[in-house]
Amino acid sequence: MQRAARLLGHLAEGGPRLGLAELAERLGVAKPTVHALLRTLEGEGLVMKDRRTGRYALGPGVLTLGNAFLETHELRMRSLTWADLLAMRADEAVWVGVLTGSRVLVVHHAFRPAGAVQILDVGASLPWHTCALGKAMVAFAPAGLRMELLDGELPPLTGHSLVDRAAVSGQLAEVGNLGYAVENQECALGDAGIAAPVFDRAGLVGAIGVVGPVERVLDPERSPELAVKVREVARQLSRELGAGRAALV
Amino acid sequence: MQRAARLLGHLAEGGPRLGLAELAERLGVAKPTVHALLRTLEGEGLVMKDRRTGRYALGPGVLTLGNAFLETHELRMRSLTWADLLAMRADEAVWVGVLTGSRVLVVHHAFRPAGAVQILDVGASLPWHTCALGKAMVAFAPAGLRMELLDGELPPLTGHSLVDRAAVSGQLAEVGNLGYAVENQECALGDAGIAAPVFDRAGLVGAIGVVGPVERVLDPERSPELAVKVREVARQLSRELGAGRAALV
Repeated sequence: MQRAARLLGHLAEGGPRLGLAELAERLGVAKPTVHALLRTLEGEGLVMKDRRTGRYALGPGVLTLGNAFLETHELRMRSLTWADLLAMRADEAVWVGVLTGSRVLVVHHAFRPAGAVQILDVGASLPWHTCALGKAMVAFAPAGLRMELLDGELPPLTGHSLVDRAAVSGQLAEVGNLGYAVENQECALGDAGIAAPVFDRAGLVGAIGVVGPVERVLDPERSPELAVKVREVARQLSRELGAGRAALV
Repeated sequence: MQRAARLLGHLAEGGPRLGLAELAERLGVAKPTVHALLRTLEGEGLVMKDRRTGRYALGPGVLTLGNAFLETHELRMRSLTWADLLAMRADEAVWVGVLTGSRVLVVHHAFRPAGAVQILDVGASLPWHTCALGKAMVAFAPAGLRMELLDGELPPLTGHSLVDRAAVSGQLAEVGNLGYAVENQECALGDAGIAAPVFDRAGLVGAIGVVGPVERVLDPERSPELAVKVREVARQLSRELGAGRAALV
């Protein structure tokens, strides 16, 4: 089982299609074993074999599973309307994310109304400290988890990414006071974000926020107002999810 | 392995989260075995356990796999620009699909330019005979596969879906002559589509087409012109994928 999951992981990272020999080497398993595994996974639609090259790639079944994950993801389903509302009010794209390990997984992306061609970011996975969603969540996460994440790796994505534990920790304290987090080109050059945490009855469940060009999102005349809109929607969504008044920030 | 894939399938269909007992019953396997399987899958991020209810759901890892599938899907990657171009030219939403078994999997969806709020259909999976993409592909598929699909189940999605083998077969012959397929509310009431097959060096690889409200897409004054646009883009994409002139329809 673990072998199968690792095999799928290799195919996901593989980029170009991988051959049997390469897969056997990467997994450290004999070719006949890998072949049997691939046949089973192919039968389930999770792997497909290129008829021409004989190489392997992920199969359509994984897309079906990914869609089922999104369709049954409670925060995503409950946030759809609120994300659209925030995109409209803020006139910016909106992301909803959850924490998975030390990364933020974008589970919903509402496009900026009437924007140019936009690329859907659902499924994107980012180091937590490089995006506003991650900082908003970790600042309001249980102290144990916060400490663990601060002690972990803080890989930079751009020259603006904070990689120093003390600097990140200081920012989290600020986020705790303000009730929202800001990201300034720490994830992608030219982009910025503002996000606030989302709670349910039992505690932190995710974050919601705006993302867009730094000139627009962090325009000094506009960003305070954007932050208010983000916090308002995060609070309304949290109330809908059953968070008590005391839990709200 | 097969057990793990089936378990993921049950979780995908499960809708509400499933408990250990339910999963054991559905799989016909003893609870301790299912529990061990769940723990392994949870460790790989493919399954997650709700802390409160103790029930299981698909984990974020399946979304990552789904995204990797899309990112490494050659037809999808090569069709992005062409799909945008067709959406612009036709002023309609565009789908790109592939045949997986007897269903059409939508691997790309370009939104209609400047449309109202649109829901992304990537990952949708439809019975082949209920959509224009499927009919376009099967009409130009090898005869053996076409016969096999015609002899298989033809489940209806709406009152307009064709369920009669002879009727579907007749339509396929027409598609073969015209070079494009039309679907009239056979998949969803109110929606229609026009699609054409896409080839590469080795043969059929998928289909591309427009989808939208039946009043717009099948407007007698507009649909012949839409069909020309769809065919043109399908041919251009096919040429880019290495299809010879002889293979083009």
